Amino acid sequence: MATTIVSTVELPEKAREMLRSYNADLYELPKLGKDEQLNALSKAEILMCWCGREFDLTSNIKYMPQLKMIQTFSAGVDHLPFAAIPNNIEIYSNAGAYSVPVAEHAWAMILTLAKGLHKPTLNAREYLNSELTSPHKITESTLLVLGTGGIGREIARIGKEGFRTYNIGINRSGKPAEYFDEVYPTDKLLDVLPRADIVAIALPLNKYTRGLIGERELRALKRGAIVVNVGRGDVVKEEELYRVLKERQDIRFGTDVWWVHDGREEIPPRTPLTALPNFLGTPHIAGGAQREIAEYAIIRAVENVIRYLRREVPMNRVNRDDYV
Amino acid sequence: MATTIVSTVELPEKAREMLRSYNADLYELPKLGKDEQLNALSKAEILMCWCGREFDLTSNIKYMPQLKMIQTFSAGVDHLPFAAIPNNIEIYSNAGAYSVPVAEHAWAMILTLAKGLHKPTLNAREYLNSELTSPHKITESTLLVLGTGGIGREIARIGKEGFRTYNIGINRSGKPAEYFDEVYPTDKLLDVLPRADIVAIALPLNKYTRGLIGERELRALKRGAIVVNVGRGDVVKEEELYRVLKERQDIRFGTDVWWVHDGREEIPPRTPLTALPNFLGTPHIAGGAQREIAEYAIIRAVENVIRYLRREVPMNRVNRDDYV
Repeated sequence: MATTIVSTVELPEKAREMLRSYNADLYELPKLGKDEQLNALSKAEILMCWCGREFDLTSNIKYMPQLKMIQTFSAGVDHLPFAAIPNNIEIYSNAGAYSVPVAEHAWAMILTLAKGLHKPTLNAREYLNSELTSPHKITESTLLVLGTGGIGREIARIGKEGFRTYNIGINRSGKPAEYFDEVYPTDKLLDVLPRADIVAIALPLNKYTRGLIGERELRALKRGAIVVNVGRGDVVKEEELYRVLKERQDIRFGTDVWWVHDGREEIPPRTPLTALPNFLGTPHIAGGAQREIAEYAIIRAVENVIRYLRREVPMNRVNRDDYV
Repeated sequence: MATTIVSTVELPEKAREMLRSYNADLYELPKLGKDEQLNALSKAEILMCWCGREFDLTSNIKYMPQLKMIQTFSAGVDHLPFAAIPNNIEIYSNAGAYSVPVAEHAWAMILTLAKGLHKPTLNAREYLNSELTSPHKITESTLLVLGTGGIGREIARIGKEGFRTYNIGINRSGKPAEYFDEVYPTDKLLDVLPRADIVAIALPLNKYTRGLIGERELRALKRGAIVVNVGRGDVVKEEELYRVLKERQDIRFGTDVWWVHDGREEIPPRTPLTALPNFLGTPHIAGGAQREIAEYAIIRAVENVIRYLRREVPMNRVNRDDYV
């Protein structure tokens, strides 16, 4: 019997083609009327979704009694309503699908801040002497990356190969990772923060990482440190960040990710962060920059679904205990 | 007999130490009174100078009858009054001394422009759809570098090792250079411009490069091209640049170097370039960012003077015919 796959978005032709050689029926919800949608969901064994605003999993899960696998198009799964998803359904993320564009964006923010390009003045003396713009040397500096997954590793690689940075990584267990000179477990974070010239946050949001960076951590930074966040906003405590950045204008902070309230990432945020001269913000566009990137991410998700269809072990299985 | 070296600036202690083991008398002009200065100049065999506003070579050359070598602290020598310098005096530049910070600055401008960080908006739709900010992918793009000297080569290296760029170089002869996949002579410029996603200008200013980039060259760029200039302003024709950038807002242009009028680099420039939303400017600060960089450049210049003292062949001999 054919496996029924439901996608909440239209797939690119290439993705459809990839699925054609498998014994699978593909339904793309945007192409269907209301009744056809319910029919598709009732047979769905695999659901491919962003599972964000385009498809409310909480209210729809009851229409999918056959569901065995959820494959997200997004790399993060922190927005999923875990409590509403029965335990027999396996969830797979799309971790790694956005590593290249997100790491590029992280480095763009790092270099923009390091060279004062977020607030350039045409007065050379002012440019060189102001704490806000004075250019920092990047080559051979110390780079601390929080998270050694796909994005964190690519940030570390660009640092090492492009700018000969010395790389320190933080992950949950402290296990070694490619492109890192040293790796420590999360509980050693406070010890390594003062060593870093640059800090890049590339952590997923889960119960271990929520609020990891607060006033104490920010105050441990060395003078003139550059910090960028391309993971999730809520890894950093917003009010504490605002307080420290307002006081310590030597720290330059860039973020592409924001704080979630009532299931919604709020831009601008609740504090007046974006008015601070040592703050640079972009509206969560690092990963979804171009059609090309979104298509690549969807193809990656389809490749993982194909692993399931071939009875191989899909990648990026989500451990619910990290979130609940 | 000891060789007399005159420096127009105070040298760092390390530089003095380096010279101590040679049979040389060092005079640093800022430490001397007027009469002592004239006495030092009268014996000078080697002059170390920026030879910019700190020391007017044209009016001082007559006080230096023994002069055999001019060693500049600057990488470029386009500001030197060649006509006033007798032909028996050899001139050596400090090419390469600023390669690392200037290449970093070039990449900072490239990434700032590529990711729209020069004009960030917090509206994601606007950010992604505007020609001014829509993020460009850098990885595996085609990088064209004009000039394959110290700075150009470092720009190419960062591109290749950090972002896997495909590198095309332009130099006078078209001779191959490290980190470049293809190199062409200057007269092939128009043929390769349409292939480039990113163009970095790292050329010295001389009679071959002045005005090399005009309307015709700029119009040959592909849609969405990013161009940065860290060489000299006058390699680009200012009015033609203004005209093309105003019309083609898909081109994003960054510069750290400006146009010279009456021997003076004018910032802001004469056209309203800096008001254009697809233009990013910094006030010639890429190379002189920090004390550390200036000190390194002076040490490099001293090393070259030591080659002369040891009767080795100094590096970076300036070919006057390139300028006159």
